[in-house]
Amino acid sequence: MMFKEIFDKVRETAPLIQCITNYVTVNDVANVLLACGGSPIMADELCEMNEMATICNGLAINIGTTLNKRVVSAMLKAGKKANALNHPVLLDPVGAGASKLRTSTCYQLMKKLNLTAIKGNASEIRALAKGSGSTKGVDAAACDLVSESNLSESVAFVKACAKKWNTLVAMTGAIDLVSDGNRCFVIRNGRAEMEKITGTGCQLAGVMCAFLAANPNTPLEAAAAATVLLGYAGEVAWDYLKPEEGNATYRNRVIDAIFHMRGEALAQGAKYEIL
Amino acid sequence: MMFKEIFDKVRETAPLIQCITNYVTVNDVANVLLACGGSPIMADELCEMNEMATICNGLAINIGTTLNKRVVSAMLKAGKKANALNHPVLLDPVGAGASKLRTSTCYQLMKKLNLTAIKGNASEIRALAKGSGSTKGVDAAACDLVSESNLSESVAFVKACAKKWNTLVAMTGAIDLVSDGNRCFVIRNGRAEMEKITGTGCQLAGVMCAFLAANPNTPLEAAAAATVLLGYAGEVAWDYLKPEEGNATYRNRVIDAIFHMRGEALAQGAKYEIL
Amino acid sequence: MMFKEIFDKVRETAPLIQCITNYVTVNDVANVLLACGGSPIMADELCEMNEMATICNGLAINIGTTLNKRVVSAMLKAGKKANALNHPVLLDPVGAGASKLRTSTCYQLMKKLNLTAIKGNASEIRALAKGSGSTKGVDAAACDLVSESNLSESVAFVKACAKKWNTLVAMTGAIDLVSDGNRCFVIRNGRAEMEKITGTGCQLAGVMCAFLAANPNTPLEAAAAATVLLGYAGEVAWDYLKPEEGNATYRNRVIDAIFHMRGEALAQGAKYEIL
Repeated sequence: MMFKEIFDKVRETAPLIQCITNYVTVNDVANVLLACGGSPIMADELCEMNEMATICNGLAINIGTTLNKRVVSAMLKAGKKANALNHPVLLDPVGAGASKLRTSTCYQLMKKLNLTAIKGNASEIRALAKGSGSTKGVDAAACDLVSESNLSESVAFVKACAKKWNTLVAMTGAIDLVSDGNRCFVIRNGRAEMEKITGTGCQLAGVMCAFLAANPNTPLEAAAAATVLLGYAGEVAWDYLKPEEGNATYRNRVIDAIFHMRGEALAQGAKYEIL
Repeated sequence: MMFKEIFDKVRETAPLIQCITNYVTVNDVANVLLACGGSPIMADELCEMNEMATICNGLAINIGTTLNKRVVSAMLKAGKKANALNHPVLLDPVGAGASKLRTSTCYQLMKKLNLTAIKGNASEIRALAKGSGSTKGVDAAACDLVSESNLSESVAFVKACAKKWNTLVAMTGAIDLVSDGNRCFVIRNGRAEMEKITGTGCQLAGVMCAFLAANPNTPLEAAAAATVLLGYAGEVAWDYLKPEEGNATYRNRVIDAIFHMRGEALAQGAKYEIL
Repeated sequence: MMFKEIFDKVRETAPLIQCITNYVTVNDVANVLLACGGSPIMADELCEMNEMATICNGLAINIGTTLNKRVVSAMLKAGKKANALNHPVLLDPVGAGASKLRTSTCYQLMKKLNLTAIKGNASEIRALAKGSGSTKGVDAAACDLVSESNLSESVAFVKACAKKWNTLVAMTGAIDLVSDGNRCFVIRNGRAEMEKITGTGCQLAGVMCAFLAANPNTPLEAAAAATVLLGYAGEVAWDYLKPEEGNATYRNRVIDAIFHMRGEALAQGAKYEIL
């Protein structure tokens, strides 16, 4: 019911989300934002950041590619303007731990901006927490993954991160954890095959920002609902996949499933508990 | 009949179109150019602009992302070379009105280049006309849209723009208007669901440039034919869409429909009048 | 049998491939790497090149877009580090011959790096060999294509290039030639319709690098196997294509076919001779 209302709000308000994101998955991020009821604008030129942040309802920062000074400056400028306007600002720390540049850029953004949410895989979040990590490229290393056996420890870890960083933390994987420091949504939607699609994490970043923008009074639930949406859409999409179809078609069907998803279905398909 | 011949000419001559375009929709622009019978090359490095413009048969400039000095210089250099060679140069003023940078860059390109066509949505064209606009990101604002009730006023507006700017103007939306200042094609092809696909406008820019390059003696008809093609392909593609398929698959099916479109079908499917 | 073992090795070792590649086809390159059993990371920022090259198992350099000093420096730095680590380094000389910048950048990379393989179409390879070429944008010019009538001459040419450059050379087209200077695989897989998909060559570059990384002791066979994989997947995918589906859906189905391809099927589907 809660997830239904949160999702309906996205479709009703159609938030415009500014994405400063990598060029690898940007097209999918734009299409998934349209699919969920939001609207995308990609812009990263410093001198238009004030105007763009003002037009938009939220800002999603993804550090995936082209982490140069020009773009980091644009991230900071857009972030500060979005903060001033009380728009949600989300950070996707892609590849944090894989290079000093990525980790230190994240720290800079975390320090200078008031982040609404940080969404990353287990290796990225652990890298930010420890100042080092076992990130294997843009995927999480096996030793970092959340499983049923280390669940309570992982929940405590994510809660501690959220408290320390004063932001929502979404740590994604086979089990997704979304916490505001006090409560933690433990989400078991999704399919392992989604890892064979490039950019489902980037897509979640965009969608989560739209959900946060449309639901300013219930940010934790909004972030959880977005996470459920991506995962559940992955389940629905899989059911429509034919035997000969693989990861490229699956990519499209996940976005298609989000396009057709209704609030009731989302609420019914959600598999979660709150710890 | 006219549209058939124009389209056949694209398939016969296979124009090579240089695109300086945004990284969001660039892959779709390349595939749609191949689908319609043209060939794409994306290049934006200043020091190869003379050679690229010389190899190519037309230039499509889209200001979607990365509007920095380096790329604007490349746009100008490629544009001047294309002008010198009498190749068509098309401007897609993405997000004009959303920031001063975008609007002023368009003015710079309009002033320094001899543009064959400007193709934008209603808010973008109005922003260029008024020096300000109500552009909501990259989509047109509701108050700017062309409808049956404001049609004659809109046609007069587009004609005036084309005359003032001495270029073809294509103002796209539920009703597309394409004018050379004297005549105006009023085109009613397309489907509202195409707005849920990112980049159909960018795709039209590439296709229109190919049509202009292949039909130098009938530019107005060529620009109108390209506009009809995108819209009618959207209708054909919709008919093949299954209930569970959404905007991601629709995106592919529109390009597929262009790939299979024949000149006769285009001529028969065209819904337009000339005012 | 050989191709089966080579492909199985990719799936077993899941090599992480760093791609410095163009923004046009980068998403497809990432998804095809996942489909074949590898893993992609796209990064091109100079100051993280040492770390990225160290994490990764191979480097694929594609000069498609944004050939500026910043990126060329990153290519060289990543390449030198990969060389030092004995990781394969592959060059895809997109558009070599189309501009001096592209040709000279390739020469610079060929001189300063120890390349494991160069993979290009006929015009690109001929441009590198002759110092000039008839490259028509990013596609090969008709006069450069390999055919049954000029096969022995073409094989001798590719062998000579491989010897002179001290690297594997893969010259792709209707007939693909892959040589180490002594032997030449003549591969007749693939379909002409694949030319209507943007970026199948870029995809092959990524996949070939993964095959080289997973099979360091049989580089020639690995490069040939990757070439067969792309071509044979194009055949399999075509068989699943419905009459109304065109190049956009075909693009997805080729990646899907790679996702589902098994080693045995690859070995059985391979059409080649060794000259």
